[in-house]
Amino acid sequence: MQSKTTSGAMLEAMREKPPLVHCITNYVAMNIAANVLLASGASPAMVHAAEEAGEFAGIASALTVNIGTLSTQWLDGMQAAAKAATSAGKPWVLDPVAHYATGFRRQAVADLLALRPTIIRGNASEIIALAGGESRGQGVDSRDPVEQAEESARRLAERQQAIVAVTGAVDFVTDGARSVRIKGGSVLMPQVTALGCSLTCLVGAFAATVPEDLFGATVAALATFAVAGEDAALGAAGPGSFAWRFLDALAALDGEALDARARVSIA
Amino acid sequence: MQSKTTSGAMLEAMREKPPLVHCITNYVAMNIAANVLLASGASPAMVHAAEEAGEFAGIASALTVNIGTLSTQWLDGMQAAAKAATSAGKPWVLDPVAHYATGFRRQAVADLLALRPTIIRGNASEIIALAGGESRGQGVDSRDPVEQAEESARRLAERQQAIVAVTGAVDFVTDGARSVRIKGGSVLMPQVTALGCSLTCLVGAFAATVPEDLFGATVAALATFAVAGEDAALGAAGPGSFAWRFLDALAALDGEALDARARVSIA
Amino acid sequence: MQSKTTSGAMLEAMREKPPLVHCITNYVAMNIAANVLLASGASPAMVHAAEEAGEFAGIASALTVNIGTLSTQWLDGMQAAAKAATSAGKPWVLDPVAHYATGFRRQAVADLLALRPTIIRGNASEIIALAGGESRGQGVDSRDPVEQAEESARRLAERQQAIVAVTGAVDFVTDGARSVRIKGGSVLMPQVTALGCSLTCLVGAFAATVPEDLFGATVAALATFAVAGEDAALGAAGPGSFAWRFLDALAALDGEALDARARVSIA
Repeated sequence: MQSKTTSGAMLEAMREKPPLVHCITNYVAMNIAANVLLASGASPAMVHAAEEAGEFAGIASALTVNIGTLSTQWLDGMQAAAKAATSAGKPWVLDPVAHYATGFRRQAVADLLALRPTIIRGNASEIIALAGGESRGQGVDSRDPVEQAEESARRLAERQQAIVAVTGAVDFVTDGARSVRIKGGSVLMPQVTALGCSLTCLVGAFAATVPEDLFGATVAALATFAVAGEDAALGAAGPGSFAWRFLDALAALDGEALDARARVSIA
Repeated sequence: MQSKTTSGAMLEAMREKPPLVHCITNYVAMNIAANVLLASGASPAMVHAAEEAGEFAGIASALTVNIGTLSTQWLDGMQAAAKAATSAGKPWVLDPVAHYATGFRRQAVADLLALRPTIIRGNASEIIALAGGESRGQGVDSRDPVEQAEESARRLAERQQAIVAVTGAVDFVTDGARSVRIKGGSVLMPQVTALGCSLTCLVGAFAATVPEDLFGATVAALATFAVAGEDAALGAAGPGSFAWRFLDALAALDGEALDARARVSIA
Repeated sequence: MQSKTTSGAMLEAMREKPPLVHCITNYVAMNIAANVLLASGASPAMVHAAEEAGEFAGIASALTVNIGTLSTQWLDGMQAAAKAATSAGKPWVLDPVAHYATGFRRQAVADLLALRPTIIRGNASEIIALAGGESRGQGVDSRDPVEQAEESARRLAERQQAIVAVTGAVDFVTDGARSVRIKGGSVLMPQVTALGCSLTCLVGAFAATVPEDLFGATVAALATFAVAGEDAALGAAGPGSFAWRFLDALAALDGEALDARARVSIA
């Protein structure tokens, strides 16, 4: 195995040894997220029940938690899994979908933040609101540009001692001290449902591969999406043809191409 | 914004100001329904838990309720959301999937009808049975032609003071007094699962856009499906290639083309 | 209707009279499994709640149970449905997804096995572990080759008096006495999530069509997948383009082509 210092090297390392990634995600994202992980080289497992989520988090190499279609029972499973992942020293990623929308959701995300996710990924509206700012979000689609979420992301990263990723037209990743921007992707991506949720799962897959470099893992996942999104857009006539081309592009991407084409800059 | 008197004008109005549509739908439909709404220009949100469904229905511009994969917990959420939508004066659409199949389902749909949906969309077997007739339905696929459901639809519309849409080879929409038929679509559409459920969500999106003209909104949604279905069928070799072409076709359709090509006639 | 002695004749019989197949499957598989059944000519219905699963199993012609995204509530529905199917003399298929992973899952599958599934379909790791052997499975993806599961499959078939199907690069079907291998498919198939779960549902569809020949029905379902998988792989550039081509290939396959191309050999 080559040195895992670049996004491309991390992608190759993931494919050499497919990590088992425990995904608790929403009903909309289940299928596409699993396909994104398989195309990228990881082994996804969707396990949510409180009866087994904790035990399974101890077996998997990373956990991802997404509150998109939340219920009380699922929240129990998320909390059990998050505690078990933390106990076992495994990274876990929180995706606070539309957490500002209802009281139930606000409380749930506060409870999950208290369990110390190692990485948080959201859209701009979600990250602004999570940091205590005023977002324009209502539903699951962001109504704020990423640029306006950068300061919120830094504050949130410091407060939570976590890596925070804001995704949108230009992505932003920070751990409070270091920050980078990642360009790429396609305007068709927000027209395909649950690609953001799928990216959260892919962040988990990279985190499972390089748990010693979670900042690098997050950047690698976002760069993978950005480059594959550009490839998929080439022949796409709309969101329908984009979606399957995106899976083909993920599967076709290799580490060398990823490193050559990723557009990551210090912020 | 132009006058919203035609289906095409409604489609353009939806895209100018994407409505937040609260969809409580089944597990099979979740992903394709969200993609149909995004491709059409609306902003879908899947929120089902009783803990938040009522609150969220107050935020969204319309609600859709589909009982495809029903459970007691979900029924609680559906009822909370339907009550909140009605209280807030927002339209809500009921999709009574296979309501005749079991006692649990029959009771659930009776409870939901009592909450006065503003629009009801189903296949012929579902609408015939809902109006008190003898349908040949067993599972989720219709075994009756739409023509035989037209009288049932009129009776149901009068009884419920709701708009009733029966979809199939030729769609039928009535409010009891007025009735229209909509031609178009493709024989491949019933071979793709959950397109009917997705159409229910799209009816909600149009209803959110023109709540003052729910009859027109329903016709616009069905006409959009009919025209996009024809476009998608052109290059499709089967149900797999039809599905993604249909999303591309929805995204590519504009108001002018919709008005020029919609085949709506007074019934 | 022609004699149903070949896989092709069974496929044609299924299309002449689409069987209603009651599928209790996982959230990841819901949509693709329903599309696989529709493309093949069957009528799928996803019904899981304990309140109605037993009643519905009495209406449908076959039941399939998949524990992929298990919870206590769903297990209640699975058990009610399995009991009702058995009482009504209808075949039911068990798919023990990753049953070795947690204590909850091990107990659930033991409870379901006690209800005597007529057919069991799994990957090699699942079947080895179910027969009491040491598998290398952790998550949902198999880590053992099918060849090493053949003896386990025979033992399991004898112990359970059931037909056991192990699917992978070369499939294996046995009732303890008779055994066959089925070649075909594509290396892209394990890269598309839930195709195995969808195959379980298709086994149910064939079992519904020829309940008098469950061994033949199982072989026919696997042969259908193997041939359609080869067709889909022809033009596919990756897992994304494979998935929709696979649905097209299923819909295009006819009984004659299936019989001519199926590669089934006595094991």
